[in-house]
Parts: sequence; structure tokens; C-alpha cells
Amino acid sequence: MSGKVFLVGAGPGDAGLLTVRAAELIAGADFIAVDALVSTDIVESFPKSAEVIYVGKRASAHTLPQDKINQLLIDEAKKGRRVVRLKGGDPFVFGRGGEEAEELVQAGVPVEIVPGISSSIAGPAYAGIPVTHRSYATSLTLVTGHEADESTGIKWDALAGLDGTIVFMMGFANLPVIVEKLTEHGVPATRPVAVISKATTREQRTVTGTLADIETRVAAANLPTPALIVVGEVVRMHDVINWFETKPLFGKRVVVTRAREQASDLKRLFEESGANVVQFPTIEIVPPESYQSLDRAINEKWHWLIFTSVNGVEAFFGRMTKDARALAGTKIAAVGDTTAAALRRHGRQPDVEAATASVRALHDAVVEAVSSHRQ
Amino acid sequence: MSGKVFLVGAGPGDAGLLTVRAAELIAGADFIAVDALVSTDIVESFPKSAEVIYVGKRASAHTLPQDKINQLLIDEAKKGRRVVRLKGGDPFVFGRGGEEAEELVQAGVPVEIVPGISSSIAGPAYAGIPVTHRSYATSLTLVTGHEADESTGIKWDALAGLDGTIVFMMGFANLPVIVEKLTEHGVPATRPVAVISKATTREQRTVTGTLADIETRVAAANLPTPALIVVGEVVRMHDVINWFETKPLFGKRVVVTRAREQASDLKRLFEESGANVVQFPTIEIVPPESYQSLDRAINEKWHWLIFTSVNGVEAFFGRMTKDARALAGTKIAAVGDTTAAALRRHGRQPDVEAATASVRALHDAVVEAVSSHRQ
Repeated sequence: MSGKVFLVGAGPGDAGLLTVRAAELIAGADFIAVDALVSTDIVESFPKSAEVIYVGKRASAHTLPQDKINQLLIDEAKKGRRVVRLKGGDPFVFGRGGEEAEELVQAGVPVEIVPGISSSIAGPAYAGIPVTHRSYATSLTLVTGHEADESTGIKWDALAGLDGTIVFMMGFANLPVIVEKLTEHGVPATRPVAVISKATTREQRTVTGTLADIETRVAAANLPTPALIVVGEVVRMHDVINWFETKPLFGKRVVVTRAREQASDLKRLFEESGANVVQFPTIEIVPPESYQSLDRAINEKWHWLIFTSVNGVEAFFGRMTKDARALAGTKIAAVGDTTAAALRRHGRQPDVEAATASVRALHDAVVEAVSSHRQ
Repeated sequence: MSGKVFLVGAGPGDAGLLTVRAAELIAGADFIAVDALVSTDIVESFPKSAEVIYVGKRASAHTLPQDKINQLLIDEAKKGRRVVRLKGGDPFVFGRGGEEAEELVQAGVPVEIVPGISSSIAGPAYAGIPVTHRSYATSLTLVTGHEADESTGIKWDALAGLDGTIVFMMGFANLPVIVEKLTEHGVPATRPVAVISKATTREQRTVTGTLADIETRVAAANLPTPALIVVGEVVRMHDVINWFETKPLFGKRVVVTRAREQASDLKRLFEESGANVVQFPTIEIVPPESYQSLDRAINEKWHWLIFTSVNGVEAFFGRMTKDARALAGTKIAAVGDTTAAALRRHGRQPDVEAATASVRALHDAVVEAVSSHRQ
């Protein structure tokens, strides 16, 4: 059986935006070469049988130069392996996928392209901004912000003259140049601009303004990278459609203690309300993996800690005794009377108790507690 | 429980390019409003429990005006139902998704946007054309071809001056205007152009040329709609990377008789080699659904008919006796000696026999037969 390389787009950040085909290929891969921008949720879904190598830029990992990456893909495919080259977003939208595919084909390796959702379109969508709209924009142009300060790159005159939506990818550092060039080439200072940080993730933040004031607004908001810049009248729709960052539990970090199989309904329900859910499966505890999760849960700050069984309470506080100050500021929810009683035995009064042991009742009780606190 | 509308992109045609999130939402939907451009494979995956309405333009169905569609979505959500509004491609890329989302929000209905893979990027990718490439294009502009003949629409001067990749969606009928306007505004006649018909489907066809000769070439090829027009130097990569239309079984239509559970491996294997596979699950025959599939199989033209059991042979020829001329020109493959013997009892000599009853052996035998026939 001959090997093959699949150039696969992993989408923009939200793991739900992975394609069905990409998920199938990942599940059946022998070798996965993965970029830094690929979502952790997707990386955690890699099969244990696959060999995985990180080729992108990460703080704590080395970076492979492009020619070494290409040679690695060729070598692995020639061994007869199914190789998945997983890239953030879409492999052919500023992803160097074209160059990689060309090298592979020229080396005689069969290649298949699996497009991914590009953050250039999904990012604005998650900020409530449709990149095209009959009333506002009949064209969409994607540009890399990387090029913004190079004399040879962007045709500013044409770009300004198009009068459609422009999305600058990877150009956050060049925001001042972008504002200056567009203004210089005749785009009115009143033209709306949005900057979307960590688009489609649970940490997404959007700042809107105009060409005149976006720099000041962004500086005040202290936005982290990566960030997209959207320029165009469509940005006006953000105030109307903004559906993602306004979810009732958006930005809330929630830990759920439960066996992984049972937890998926609970996880999905909370995620649909916008929460950032981490599962801590107490019933399956096997060191060292589960202790990592638990220690992370103890050391980080959480908005809500949700217990769904006496087992969960015992396992959590068994480890927690190491540092009892850790839960300051974290609210606690319990499903069922026996779980609440177990918490009280550990000196904790649950902030929310769902009397009936139902996932839906628990979710609704937390949403209500958060909403009433906001008032 | 309050209702909600999910504006969901179904992707460009290949059902594998549906997102995981879209597949989950479809599986859990109470009501699905679906556009004409959504792939049949996806429509066939709708849960039986969901109410389905077709709102797009189809030859044999009526079309709902936009305000009626919006009202329908609002009414269904207000009943407390989970409503999926499924659109071809991405809902916010020339899909009127912005207008629909706006109406829903203003009616007080919670809305969620699920981006889809846009054919504007995936279509070129399936034709081996990366929409951006360091050597050829540092920008991508998407335009609707619908607007091409309107005086108010496209800023031709700016578009021509950008010097990047341009993808015209839904503009096939306006190809002459597009060629004329770009030439008039200074794009050289040697600029490469590709027209991609039925992008990402098993019937995809790509014609390439230049601004000077693309009209003649497209006319000679008699391409069906829908079709994308790609203008830019990146089109040169088609000859190098073209991976989809060159698969060994690309364009071959294959019927597989087998119980659906067992058939999925076989189907996947043939699809990965490019075949258009229809399953005819003989073991589960329940009128009328299975007779529809079978009659379709008999009435249409197929390249290969693959039998994997005696049951399959008996069920197929039991129905086939109605019109014995139907299989003229169709080649027949059999897995295993007993299946081959059953075929001979019906007066058919298999063109290919896989001696060992293995899915892989059968697939390889067909690929070999097709390849040697081509020489």
C-alpha cells in the first residue's frame, strides 16, 4: 500500500469547525505534522497510534525550516504511511500549502488537499460581522498584514478603491501602517474597523471603531495576538448580530468532575451557553495524566467548579489538601443532595444546588446565578 | 426550553467538507430549512425526526421569497424548536446570511452562526489551485459574478489594479463581460484563467486558459453550471498540483450491493480513489426506499457494478428482469467464488473477480482494470 500526504486545514480555533473529512483522516493517520496555530482540543483528539511532530512556532518547542518539513513529509509517505499535515485555518489561504503541495508532487508523493474553515471568514462571523452584505459590501479581499510594511506587497491604491470588505490576516503589529496607508489612499476616516483577537475561541475579544480611532481603542483594550483586522461598512453589523461574545456564560471557565463518557452531554450544554469547559474525569484517575489536569485545575483560576458525584468531591479534595487557598473566588455547584452533603463534609457550602440530578437543571441553575449576579 | 436558529454552512459540495459542529446540529435539529445548493449526501443524512423544508431554487420545487423564509425561521424558533438553516458554502459569503441573522435578532430569536467551507476557496483547491501563493498572489478577492453586468457593482479599475487572485462566484453566465472588463482595465491577455464546474463534487471539471482564449475553451468543453471563475497567476499551479480530477477512478460511477454497515469500508476505499459510489443495500430491502435506489441504478449509466454477495446478485437480478438491456456498457466485478458463480447463473460473466473475499483486493483489481484499459 502506497503512502500519501493529506494537506489538511484544521479550521480557525473552535474545534467544532473541523471538517468531518479532516476528523476521519486524523483518526486514521500514521504520522501527523502539526502547526502551532492548531487548537489544543484537536491535538488532544489525535489517536495514540499516530506519531506526532510539531513543526510550527511555539514558545517551548523548536521550529523546523520549510525544506526540512517538506523532506520529512516525503520520507514518511515513501515509507507507505498515511501522513496528515495539519495546518491552522485553510492550507491554501496564506498557509504555504501551495509550496508544500508542489514539492510533494514533484517528489512523486500522492497528495490530497482538505480545505479548512479560514479564520478570515469565520473570525468576523463569530464577531457578528458578515464579510459580504447586499447593503454594505459586494466584495471581500484577504491580505496578509505581514506584507503591510513592505514596499513590494500590497497595492494600497487598488485596495482602497475597491470599496469592499478587507480582512488583514496576521497583521496586528502593522495596524498603524494599515491605518496610515488606507487613509493616505482615500479611505474616509469614518470607515468602520474591527480587531478580533483569538477569533472563534472561548477567549475571543472584539474591539470596534473607525480608521480614526481604532488604534487608541485597541491600545486601551490591550488585546492579545493573534488578531484579525476587518475594514469595511459590514463592521456596523457587529452591534446587531454579535451572538458569540454575548452568550450567557461566555468567558466563564468551568471545571466538570465526571467520568468522561457521562460528561459529554454536560460539557456540550455548557459550551453552547459559551462556557470554557475543562473535564476532570475523577472516576478514571490514572497517574500521571489525570493529576496534570487536576493540578492545572487547582493552580488556575476558575469561575465555576461543578461536582456531579460524591466520587468527584472525594477525589478532588483528596488532592486539594495540598493548597487549600486555591479555590478563593471560585463558585461551586453540585448536582443532587448526596454530592452537596459530601461538599459540606469538606467545609464547602455549594453556591448552587440542583435538587434533581439532571444535567439540564444544573446548567440552568448556573446560568441563572451568573445572570442575576450581573444585574 | 427556548428555541434557537442556527445559520449553518453546508460547505461546497463534497459532503466530507461539512463541519463536525454542523453534523451535530443537523443530527439534533427539530426543523431544517435547506437551500438548493446543499449536497444530496448531506440531505440524505437528515434525521427522520426532523421536519425538512426546501427553500432554495430547484427545478421541481417552489421557491419561498426571502421574507417568508425569515418569518418561517422566526415562527419555528418561537415554538421552542431547534432550527437549522442550512446554506450551501458559507452563510456569510454571498449567502444573504447577514440579512437573515439581522431579521432573527431583531425578532428576538437567539441565533448562532456556523461557518462553512466556501467553494470560492475549496473549489480552486480541488482544481489544484492555491488561491494565495508567495510567488504568485498575496491577495484574494471574492466577487459575485451576478453583479458583473451592473453599472453600480464591481469597481473594475481597482480589481484589475490589485494584481492578486480574483474568484468570481455565480458569474458563469457573465464570463464574456468579465473578460471584457478586466481586459479593458489593463489586465494582460496572457493572465491565466480557470473555470471550475461543479467544484468539489465527483462531477467536477476544470478548464484553464488565458483571458484571451478562455471563452473559446469553455464553449468547446460545454461546461455545466454552477461554475467558478478564477483569474490570476496561481492558475498556473493547476497543471502541477491537480490532484482530484486525476485520481485513478475519478468520474467512474460505481454501484455497490451490500448491507450498509459492511459497505462503508468499501465505499470509502473507492471514494478515496475518486469513484462516485452509490450503495444499494440489498440485505435491508424495504419498499419503497430501496426500490428507488435500485431503479435509479438500473435506469442510469454506471461504469462498474460491484457484487459482494450471492444475496446482492439475487436481489439485483430479481428486480432487473424488468429491463434486461439496462446494463449494456456496465462492467461487473465480484468478490469471491460463490458471488461470481451466482452471476454466471444469471448469464453474466464478471469482468473482474477478486479471488480472496477482501475489500482491498476488489478495489485494487478494479483500479488495475481501469488503468490498463486507459493505456
